[in-house]
Amino acid sequence: MKLSRKSDYALRAVWHLTNLPTGKLSSISVIAEDQSVPREFLAKILKDLSRSGLLVSYQGVNGGYRLARAPRDISFLDVIEAIDGPIHLNLCTEDNCPCEDDNCYFCKFWETQENNFKKALSKQNFGKYKQRARK
Amino acid sequence: MKLSRKSDYALRAVWHLTNLPTGKLSSISVIAEDQSVPREFLAKILKDLSRSGLLVSYQGVNGGYRLARAPRDISFLDVIEAIDGPIHLNLCTEDNCPCEDDNCYFCKFWETQENNFKKALSKQNFGKYKQRARK
Repeated sequence: MKLSRKSDYALRAVWHLTNLPTGKLSSISVIAEDQSVPREFLAKILKDLSRSGLLVSYQGVNGGYRLARAPRDISFLDVIEAIDGPIHLNLCTEDNCPCEDDNCYFCKFWETQENNFKKALSKQNFGKYKQRARK
Repeated sequence: MKLSRKSDYALRAVWHLTNLPTGKLSSISVIAEDQSVPREFLAKILKDLSRSGLLVSYQGVNGGYRLARAPRDISFLDVIEAIDGPIHLNLCTEDNCPCEDDNCYFCKFWETQENNFKKALSKQNFGKYKQRARK
């Protein structure tokens, strides 16, 4: 029941980019060092985040990454689902739920938990993380 | 961010035992068939639940399993932590949190989510599941 390491690193990478001066880019090497993330793993993460439209990447010697939109318009849910796909807290909230009862208590419990958790993740945006980067 | 299959099966096994008539036992084979859980995997799960004091096992031809206490005194949290150990939603709530700031927004967010989730799991007890076993 734990966030994947990949999603944790992705959140930290977006946090780093949140605190760049307007118009500036950051390279894989700089983000990797600042956030203590293995470089090769980070390269895959940044590719996923760019494909999902959360980052913009620029090629070349002076290339790098920046956020594709304002930090307040990027939520934790956006980042986590860009990396790991839709969140499902248990089988019951997926297509292959083995329960047979339409009014199943068990399914309702997991649906409620999942909805609450996703709501909290979608409310948590990076606007709050501006000027709070790690030293 | 998903419940392990092992914990899901454990919850279903306890659900099954919740609905036994008082004083009755259920065997691995019966639980496995009723809850569509692979028998060998279930044997390990029932051993873990017994070791944690949630079930009582009886050896012999007429042996089997029953709950060690009333269904209302067994929570989802009890079962999940008996199987997978303490719940940690992210690194920040474990001993190896990489954040350096004691007032870290990121850590506080994950701590809050984890506390809310554990509270919901501890409130969800099997008293509610009595007489609601799957057909």
